Amino acid sequence: MTIAVIYGGTRPNGNNEVLTDHSIQGIEVEKIYLRDYNIQPIDDMRHAPEGFQEKNDDYNAIIDRILPHDILIFSTPIYWYSMSGTMKNFIDRWSQTLRDAKYPDFKKQMAAKKAFVIAVGGDNPGIKGLPMIQQFQHIFDFMGMDFGGYVIGEGNKPGDILHDQKALFAATQLNQNLKN
Amino acid sequence: MTIAVIYGGTRPNGNNEVLTDHSIQGIEVEKIYLRDYNIQPIDDMRHAPEGFQEKNDDYNAIIDRILPHDILIFSTPIYWYSMSGTMKNFIDRWSQTLRDAKYPDFKKQMAAKKAFVIAVGGDNPGIKGLPMIQQFQHIFDFMGMDFGGYVIGEGNKPGDILHDQKALFAATQLNQNLKN
Amino acid sequence: MTIAVIYGGTRPNGNNEVLTDHSIQGIEVEKIYLRDYNIQPIDDMRHAPEGFQEKNDDYNAIIDRILPHDILIFSTPIYWYSMSGTMKNFIDRWSQTLRDAKYPDFKKQMAAKKAFVIAVGGDNPGIKGLPMIQQFQHIFDFMGMDFGGYVIGEGNKPGDILHDQKALFAATQLNQNLKN
Amino acid sequence: MTIAVIYGGTRPNGNNEVLTDHSIQGIEVEKIYLRDYNIQPIDDMRHAPEGFQEKNDDYNAIIDRILPHDILIFSTPIYWYSMSGTMKNFIDRWSQTLRDAKYPDFKKQMAAKKAFVIAVGGDNPGIKGLPMIQQFQHIFDFMGMDFGGYVIGEGNKPGDILHDQKALFAATQLNQNLKN
Repeated sequence: MTIAVIYGGTRPNGNNEVLTDHSIQGIEVEKIYLRDYNIQPIDDMRHAPEGFQEKNDDYNAIIDRILPHDILIFSTPIYWYSMSGTMKNFIDRWSQTLRDAKYPDFKKQMAAKKAFVIAVGGDNPGIKGLPMIQQFQHIFDFMGMDFGGYVIGEGNKPGDILHDQKALFAATQLNQNLKN
Repeated sequence: MTIAVIYGGTRPNGNNEVLTDHSIQGIEVEKIYLRDYNIQPIDDMRHAPEGFQEKNDDYNAIIDRILPHDILIFSTPIYWYSMSGTMKNFIDRWSQTLRDAKYPDFKKQMAAKKAFVIAVGGDNPGIKGLPMIQQFQHIFDFMGMDFGGYVIGEGNKPGDILHDQKALFAATQLNQNLKN
Repeated sequence: MTIAVIYGGTRPNGNNEVLTDHSIQGIEVEKIYLRDYNIQPIDDMRHAPEGFQEKNDDYNAIIDRILPHDILIFSTPIYWYSMSGTMKNFIDRWSQTLRDAKYPDFKKQMAAKKAFVIAVGGDNPGIKGLPMIQQFQHIFDFMGMDFGGYVIGEGNKPGDILHDQKALFAATQLNQNLKN
Repeated sequence: MTIAVIYGGTRPNGNNEVLTDHSIQGIEVEKIYLRDYNIQPIDDMRHAPEGFQEKNDDYNAIIDRILPHDILIFSTPIYWYSMSGTMKNFIDRWSQTLRDAKYPDFKKQMAAKKAFVIAVGGDNPGIKGLPMIQQFQHIFDFMGMDFGGYVIGEGNKPGDILHDQKALFAATQLNQNLKN
């Protein structure tokens, strides 16, 4: 069982990264920082006769990195009560991959994976972050992925997350879960 | 009372645009198609000593277009159970404007506006689009904006929305509401 | 195709009843007013050796009335952002019926039905009533029932609902839907 | 600072009680088991000329027990993705108390309290219990109460909750929080 972590934050060592790294301590994982890639927004060409066009950005390179893994951890700061726009653009593009002849088994491959979400927000994320969790559930349901669980932490300033004992404990639990 | 419509879709004449245009028929509005602009994702520099850096993209030009208006209509297709990544990146950047010396009254100006949401999705949006509506509520609450209401329509293929009588009626209602 | 309407309100001719009756105009339906019945709260005896005990209230009589029908309409005022306690007690008791030897096919029979929800609330029900809709979705999913749709109206004082044009239109749409 | 715990479960020593008792270990609290009381559903008489009528049940006795306390813990099993019907009937009746001349300061007194929710469910409560948490938020917002936080645990059979390490830790955290 191998793990890829998809980081949606834009600030290195942000609270969500600290919390995520707590949950993967001692485990070898593939770390994918979306901010290091050029990901264009989707152009919805589902209904155009010519279909989706190649974007010539880095999106497919990310897909190639995640597909070999069994477990995907989506790690995102909560910006405006949802995942970062960077991560949203990445997921929006799945609509293109679902119709991409180069990835004929994309949905089937994704459906074999287990997903986790780790998210940190500053404005009452335990309540106001819940719609985002519901959206991830819908996303994973659509792809046929198993939603293994989520950890929500609270933090604004760098390092804040280290004071959220409940989130740290949940991350430790996830760590043990991932090790077994 | 003047109106700006912020379109988050990537497909011209997509279902959400058709539904939106139904709701603004006979009303002069400023139409802003986010897909025509280069909007970079936010770099979270809230806690960096140097602060946020100019992005040299088109984001501020959009802000300049919306600020003079009294009513904002957020029109987005529902991609993966939420607003498009394009619209999300636009909203994410508000965090920067909130700290931008060039827009000292950004929050106050936004708080004086009334907001509406029009969204069309293909996978049971009346249920699975609800978390997105809750997120818009949180966003508007944070900014102090009045959430005037929303219209959710269902459609996948071009023109589908014309068969969603309930959504069309709601758009007509909104049209009358906006005219008064 | 026959229809049973389950009314959860406690006030005769309340706004949710008016809206519901709009949606069933010209259709023969079986009307079940929960307030006319004595429905005891469930006693959770799932894990007791003796199992659930007969309650000697009217609950089973209601089950006997709904089971023959193909379509169930749950009509409830929104009390405190959710269905009425009366309707909640009725649904809580399904846990007992699921284990009741007198109803060996309860789940199977329910799974063959289509469900609708009609609800009227006074405090921004289009937003604050959404968690209730999500709960109905979970309930119907558990039972394997098809969730055909919902109508949310706004009203406080008697007759208020007659001013909610959007809800009335949606009820008219549902009416046509039910007639076909 | 004194604490009242309002238990909505119907099974003595149910999982939600075990989890709750974990969170109040070593603290003197007033324990109110709703199942020990006769609580009638509300009759919505807000708009009747004669107003609400006395119910001659035990509801007011419960109100008298909770009003002196500073902190209220709502402890409920998750039945059908929401609070128990017993607890719902209790809360529904607040509409009556808000208009009851015997409790002229009901809202003001409630607004001074801090609320917590502890809930245990068997069907993926970390996701499917979220709408209930949102409803509690709306309820507390309406009353002006501060929502201090919530703990969701997973369990079906008696004792299951003792295996939910994350919930137990959160309960321990709440325990320390309540002691300070």
